[in-house]
Amino acid sequence: MAGVSVATVSYVLNGTAPISDKTREKVERIIRETGYRSNMLAKSLRTNESRLIGILVEDITVWHTPQIIDGINEIAERQGYHTILSNLRLMSKIASRFEDISNYQEDIDREVDMLAGMQVDGIIYVGMHDRMLPEMISDIGKPVVYCYCYPMGRGSSVRYDNEEVLYQLTGLMLKKGYRRFGVIGGLEGSEPAALRLKGFQRAMKEAGIEVPPENVLCGGWNYKEGRETAGKLLDRKDFPQIIMAMNDEMAVGVYDAATELGLKIPEDVAVTGFDHAAIAQHISPELVTVERPLQAMGYHAMELLTEQISGREEENQDIILPCRIIPGASVRADGYR
Amino acid sequence: MAGVSVATVSYVLNGTAPISDKTREKVERIIRETGYRSNMLAKSLRTNESRLIGILVEDITVWHTPQIIDGINEIAERQGYHTILSNLRLMSKIASRFEDISNYQEDIDREVDMLAGMQVDGIIYVGMHDRMLPEMISDIGKPVVYCYCYPMGRGSSVRYDNEEVLYQLTGLMLKKGYRRFGVIGGLEGSEPAALRLKGFQRAMKEAGIEVPPENVLCGGWNYKEGRETAGKLLDRKDFPQIIMAMNDEMAVGVYDAATELGLKIPEDVAVTGFDHAAIAQHISPELVTVERPLQAMGYHAMELLTEQISGREEENQDIILPCRIIPGASVRADGYR
Repeated sequence: MAGVSVATVSYVLNGTAPISDKTREKVERIIRETGYRSNMLAKSLRTNESRLIGILVEDITVWHTPQIIDGINEIAERQGYHTILSNLRLMSKIASRFEDISNYQEDIDREVDMLAGMQVDGIIYVGMHDRMLPEMISDIGKPVVYCYCYPMGRGSSVRYDNEEVLYQLTGLMLKKGYRRFGVIGGLEGSEPAALRLKGFQRAMKEAGIEVPPENVLCGGWNYKEGRETAGKLLDRKDFPQIIMAMNDEMAVGVYDAATELGLKIPEDVAVTGFDHAAIAQHISPELVTVERPLQAMGYHAMELLTEQISGREEENQDIILPCRIIPGASVRADGYR
Repeated sequence: MAGVSVATVSYVLNGTAPISDKTREKVERIIRETGYRSNMLAKSLRTNESRLIGILVEDITVWHTPQIIDGINEIAERQGYHTILSNLRLMSKIASRFEDISNYQEDIDREVDMLAGMQVDGIIYVGMHDRMLPEMISDIGKPVVYCYCYPMGRGSSVRYDNEEVLYQLTGLMLKKGYRRFGVIGGLEGSEPAALRLKGFQRAMKEAGIEVPPENVLCGGWNYKEGRETAGKLLDRKDFPQIIMAMNDEMAVGVYDAATELGLKIPEDVAVTGFDHAAIAQHISPELVTVERPLQAMGYHAMELLTEQISGREEENQDIILPCRIIPGASVRADGYR
């Protein structure tokens, strides 16, 4: 229709050779008018490169997942990749019983098969909880990067540093003069809960301060238990000068328990959280908390994957990104005296 | 390898004919051992049916989007469809300047082309804000369902009923005896803001109550303006008996403004919200609010799409789902006297 060769049309479509403006405009006009679309499936069968990557998420409704996907998409967009999303919908199925994931191995295999069948160049697996996974993605001969979790076996991963940021945050609180600490930890058996506690304890040990075991309690990651646990910590004569809650939801519980006991934050008791979550966005005073590098985890996962696809990076990597401390007024500005 | 015909292998793989257990087990074992995978791309070129649907979201980080996707996935899983996700990432690019979307028409066209090239059987478009869209998805000869928005032109849509639920909620408050209402509305020019206000005004008109214009103010959907606006409404001699905030974020602002002025909720002033959002999950007293049928919007969008793919439904539909009122203690249980 344009009176040019097939090769010329291909050059215009793919920008693979210089074409005169006049010819380009003519070809582009006809493409517009006829609604021509190159068949990506046929093309990918021919080139053996789909420029597609699969994102396999354990659950899209878990709040960190969309931000990680968004980070992946930003880099994918820049690098000319498209993404296929598979949502395993595991949260409603297994909640925090992570060992039950083995019951869903068939579902995972089926999704991986689907992605392999779509000829993806690689897969990013996004966990719903930061933890070690038994090897779960069968070898499809393509690189796999795990994000917000890490594999026991083969595969790269991108995570955030639970331990280091709690070590830093505890150090800051010690520097402000706080000495009598209470901790409301996450779910027992949870890896991030254990790592955050480890960071806390390392800082305390370096400062030579012993923390009585009755000051370190478990709050199950949720508001209700956080509030009850805070009640136990605060309803004593020698209650802690500061309570470090290992997520924001429990920190909101600490606020309400303190109010109930007539204690003021930060004058009577200071509070810190973790997550920088919506739930604590407008509590007063503003909560000192920790922000996880969610978007950046997506960036790194996608960059690592494309490096492995191109063969520039062959070794498995385990990237651990730093978190950021968010200041607030839930801790005395002038420190504890 | 199994000593059976190609047809038999195909029967086993696709379950299209009865096969003896012994033969099935043998074929399945060899499939497992050799890591055979059917090439979905090649298969879909052959059958002209990909069992793939495209989900094109304006922004995955907008909080209602993951729940709608999850709803779509649940039905897709049940019906044997897989989904390809394209994230336009428009929130950071255009925020609330919805008319600017025309600047991104090329991006949208490119994503639609990609999905068409992947041979999707249909597309679901998920808006970041409930509104009418100028026709944006070019005709690819496949059905399109819009969700959380609706097209000016061709295409079906699934939405929720802003007006009706505000009419009902206002009616409930009138029944409780409230007469002097304040309203903190959403962003000016926003369709859901206008519809919610319309529902409110219809109920008031039916009750024969005139609302002074100075009691109906705009709060820009955000906490800060919500708090300031509530301050203006409450810092008067004849302040409203009840403030209806058109989202939860502004309702949290009303709580803080009331506290600042020494007013108790619900004794001195009642408050209602809209969204059932995380931000208002643990405020005290519990907020009376409205839950949108997000998961259900995904179900309906996917069901409508598959009906159109199969040709069972040919007319364009505009489905408007009801919202649910969530009770709470931010309104007097015994009513206003």
